[in-house]
Amino acid sequence: MNENAAMSRGDFEQALRAKSAYYHIHHPFHKAMYEGRCTPQQIRGWVANRYYYQISIPIKDAAIMANCPSATVRRHWIQRILDHDGYDDDAGGIEAWLALGEAVGLSREEIISQQHVLPGVRFAVDAYVNFARRASWQEAASSSLTELFAPQIHQSRLDSWPQHYPWIDEKGYSYFRKRLSEARRDVEHGLQITLDYYRTREQQERMLEILQFKLDVLWSMLDAMSMAYELGRAPYHTVTQEQVYHRGIAL
Amino acid sequence: MNENAAMSRGDFEQALRAKSAYYHIHHPFHKAMYEGRCTPQQIRGWVANRYYYQISIPIKDAAIMANCPSATVRRHWIQRILDHDGYDDDAGGIEAWLALGEAVGLSREEIISQQHVLPGVRFAVDAYVNFARRASWQEAASSSLTELFAPQIHQSRLDSWPQHYPWIDEKGYSYFRKRLSEARRDVEHGLQITLDYYRTREQQERMLEILQFKLDVLWSMLDAMSMAYELGRAPYHTVTQEQVYHRGIAL
Repeated sequence: MNENAAMSRGDFEQALRAKSAYYHIHHPFHKAMYEGRCTPQQIRGWVANRYYYQISIPIKDAAIMANCPSATVRRHWIQRILDHDGYDDDAGGIEAWLALGEAVGLSREEIISQQHVLPGVRFAVDAYVNFARRASWQEAASSSLTELFAPQIHQSRLDSWPQHYPWIDEKGYSYFRKRLSEARRDVEHGLQITLDYYRTREQQERMLEILQFKLDVLWSMLDAMSMAYELGRAPYHTVTQEQVYHRGIAL
Repeated sequence: MNENAAMSRGDFEQALRAKSAYYHIHHPFHKAMYEGRCTPQQIRGWVANRYYYQISIPIKDAAIMANCPSATVRRHWIQRILDHDGYDDDAGGIEAWLALGEAVGLSREEIISQQHVLPGVRFAVDAYVNFARRASWQEAASSSLTELFAPQIHQSRLDSWPQHYPWIDEKGYSYFRKRLSEARRDVEHGLQITLDYYRTREQQERMLEILQFKLDVLWSMLDAMSMAYELGRAPYHTVTQEQVYHRGIAL
């Protein structure tokens, strides 16, 4: 086989799907979550930190649209923003995340204040948003393709959390259910753009690096949470108990 | 005392200097380095990762200049770029860092390839560069003020490394010596800009948050190195031995 020859559409899709080996479903913090080994404080830490990802996704999607001259593509892509921010009677994904936060025992105010958001989480999420600002819209759009693996992770939470964490109000799980169907729909559009756009071997290799970058974002978020909530190594634990890190500068 | 009243110039400078409590000199990984508890592999990991910070600093400084309409300020600020990139017979700080890398047993090629740069380090450094791209030049300039604390950290390395790590060629230490004097000079200019620019209490509080953001960048870099080189938790350690994370996307 010629290593410089472009992959066929099918082989390229297979190479993208093989990246699931690096999905954060394998991260020790995520494993602990779905195996029922997390304390309420660890679950709360994850929900409060992951909130920063949730509120950044529509900004990322707006950045993609801001670089995209095709009205046809924008007409598709805008659905992602509507899904997260809500429209008409749909309160949207961010609101559903806040409901999850309340179900695990956080107040809306402390989630929205971002007081628990760790710097490492912020930097990883900001990297994703900034990539969308600076890359071509096709590259930024295809970086969303970790959605290929998302239904599995949402399903794993729906399957395991109710039995392991009976103290969590089941009404909180609507976000995971909502994303199960949305992610499946989104991935079709993102995959189409990606398979159409990357045609040479060099471009396809570049795309695999972009997908790895996005996997790094998700993994690094959980690394920061592991340090803070699992390993007792929150920032500045050596010198103070004060939570200085809520003073985040968003990029 | 009125909590809303602006701090005097002296009090504001004291408040900035008090942020030294959060400087990465207190990070467990840094403590292990200057107390002689690091393995050669840990020292090499630090030098190879910190290289990404070194090469990003002139880009950060160019971003500040790109937002600054004052030729007078730019004439001062450009010295930082010259210091790092070199000019005339001065090979510059990046070259001095490569010499440190060779002194600790890395090859120039593996440093320059960035194959050891961890995603968490990349995201933290990129956050600093992106802040400089998007903030006003005064805010970005003042975020450099962790230089207030830099002479102490360089001196601590010069004082302790030669005795603890006799296997490191002393020729490698020229970077730390070079920065001792440069950081002292730079900080005067940065401090002048900062004390002149932030006059209201609200602005001064904002500046303290910006300095905290920069402290978070430095701390998070060491967190990522702790995970990889101290705690056995490098990215994707759960699923593969392959070093996927060298495929970094720079922002």
